[in-house]
Amino acid sequence: MTARIRQFLRRRDEDGPCLVVDLEVVRENYLAFAKALPDTKVFYAVKANPAPEVLSLLASLGSSFDAASVAEIEMVLAAGAGSERISYGNTIKKERDIARAHALGVRLYAVDCVAEVEKVARAAPGARVLCRILSDCADSDWPLSRKFGCEPSMAVDVLEHAHRLGLEAYGISFHVGSQQRNPNAWDRALASAAAVFRECGERGLTPSMINLGGGFPTRYHKNVPTVKTYGSAIFRALRRHFGNRIPETIIEPGRGLVGNAGIIETEVVLVSRKSDNDDVRWVYLDIGRFGGLAETLDESIRYPIRTPRDGDELAPCVLAGPTCDSVDVMYEKQPYALPISLEIGDKLLIEGTGAYTATYASVAFNGFPPLKTYHI
Amino acid sequence: MTARIRQFLRRRDEDGPCLVVDLEVVRENYLAFAKALPDTKVFYAVKANPAPEVLSLLASLGSSFDAASVAEIEMVLAAGAGSERISYGNTIKKERDIARAHALGVRLYAVDCVAEVEKVARAAPGARVLCRILSDCADSDWPLSRKFGCEPSMAVDVLEHAHRLGLEAYGISFHVGSQQRNPNAWDRALASAAAVFRECGERGLTPSMINLGGGFPTRYHKNVPTVKTYGSAIFRALRRHFGNRIPETIIEPGRGLVGNAGIIETEVVLVSRKSDNDDVRWVYLDIGRFGGLAETLDESIRYPIRTPRDGDELAPCVLAGPTCDSVDVMYEKQPYALPISLEIGDKLLIEGTGAYTATYASVAFNGFPPLKTYHI
Repeated sequence: MTARIRQFLRRRDEDGPCLVVDLEVVRENYLAFAKALPDTKVFYAVKANPAPEVLSLLASLGSSFDAASVAEIEMVLAAGAGSERISYGNTIKKERDIARAHALGVRLYAVDCVAEVEKVARAAPGARVLCRILSDCADSDWPLSRKFGCEPSMAVDVLEHAHRLGLEAYGISFHVGSQQRNPNAWDRALASAAAVFRECGERGLTPSMINLGGGFPTRYHKNVPTVKTYGSAIFRALRRHFGNRIPETIIEPGRGLVGNAGIIETEVVLVSRKSDNDDVRWVYLDIGRFGGLAETLDESIRYPIRTPRDGDELAPCVLAGPTCDSVDVMYEKQPYALPISLEIGDKLLIEGTGAYTATYASVAFNGFPPLKTYHI
Repeated sequence: MTARIRQFLRRRDEDGPCLVVDLEVVRENYLAFAKALPDTKVFYAVKANPAPEVLSLLASLGSSFDAASVAEIEMVLAAGAGSERISYGNTIKKERDIARAHALGVRLYAVDCVAEVEKVARAAPGARVLCRILSDCADSDWPLSRKFGCEPSMAVDVLEHAHRLGLEAYGISFHVGSQQRNPNAWDRALASAAAVFRECGERGLTPSMINLGGGFPTRYHKNVPTVKTYGSAIFRALRRHFGNRIPETIIEPGRGLVGNAGIIETEVVLVSRKSDNDDVRWVYLDIGRFGGLAETLDESIRYPIRTPRDGDELAPCVLAGPTCDSVDVMYEKQPYALPISLEIGDKLLIEGTGAYTATYASVAFNGFPPLKTYHI
């Protein structure tokens, strides 16, 4: 919570939940990354929060951008960054979208299989490709499944195929898992990447870049290591696996750049019990899983919540959203401790909500409008 | 798949996934409900598909409507139904939203606790309230958790409180669980409702209505009983528990009215394997969990999928969406059998998608636009 957000919310008199993002915090976060990893370019993961104000700020600070779609590429260009600062990082692209990106000047593409390489070769001839490899995501709060990437052994074939089709077999990318709380997680992935680089070398390829991905955590309830700690750990791992021939590196922070910059204000709509002797209260808010808090799925992310009655005695609550949908429940398996004195109409502040909230919101589920946002 | 949808899709040349709903099927579904339960009023659950075309059609057929929000109430009024045909069925309402609904003429409200009764008494004096009771949801594909409703023993107190505050303690509502495939599921809930009615009678209250809720299934892969079978089973249960004093009843079908009327057309963006000896292919579509297929959460709903290569040999696939989000995977624990010959660019048809798709879609997650819809 920053003084600027507090002041903004004090003046706001509109109805309904809202997200307020303090751009000063985004700026500080960017500068911390730039300082902690001075030889690494920051490619902001636009999907985390594509608000024009965030993109313009980061563009002015010199950031590059990781885009998931042509629409995101266009937003970055509109924010004033040139196409040389954009990576089309989604490994799943329609060929006509690659052609659109190519026409807009984008030259760096992620792939993880031969079929995707062939699309890029046809639609963006001569482009640079990074092959994404699978990583095990141990220690991350939200492992990434096997959706993106291929086994490292296959990556060499993919890059060789790219080279054969006239593309630049530019390097390797990976992702150590979202909200990764172990700074040494990059070590294992870099060991795999180094092995791929060696095998590429044996086949006459000269990959030069490693995309270290995102996964940098934001603070929810548990403390997380500082960006500086991550920077040092990553640099040590690069040294260990690449010696004096450290490749060009980029990172793709999303949550790590904007997560702690945002606060959602919400209102308590109802507090009730299911029977006279129920020992858990149900607290219903005017925001839920469909209004922006999608990352509470499986209770993965446990946001810190401030109430106007903090300091009063606490008791466990099930926390649910306002829709007529029974899956619209945020915390139930692990009830959330909130003040016993909490009342209908109280305004709560949900912290750490600057990333993956506003654009996740449903169009109009149950007739509720999407989350209002303010970037100040 | 209907001939009208097939013809529409043949002519469509826009890019991107879309939902097409055949209003003729909605009409047939409505008439089937009206015939199967001739003494029961149909209150269409607007949230299932609030398209103006669906609402206007149902309004013209004489349907009533269950609304989850003031926005849905306004949509129903705009579709030509009067406020006497609207129930504000969400048990979680802001007091100022109740006041808005009251100002729009709505007289029937759902509650499940004393605090909600007090809001209704202040904001909609004299209104009719139905108290929702918990039900066990056995046999439903998607049990409803305990989010809505109270224990039947508490419902009597809630209704008595309503009566004391000048409201009409109008009756009981319940929901036997979404996609309920056992027509006898209503029997247990009606036994509870009858007990509440008896106890109300002993306290001098005269509840007169039972809202039998929704839960009527649509056909995905498994066959489901006909609406007529549900009608007979419900009528038998009403006779068993209420004898010759059967109360006024209403039902709230959503999925049962529109689910089978809709088809989503989608395109195969990528087919790949994670290693050379991977025995499961990954098939990536241009629609996923954030683009309208939210009900594939936990692989709950398994939609039937048609391909242009049906009849060819099948092999298991993981089916995933187009976003850079690792949870955007529809079927992985139970891979989906699709033709081995499936290729990038193939158009697939996802059946039974008329309910809970379009409005569930994200505003702009990863820059992808919400699902396009056509109601023909």
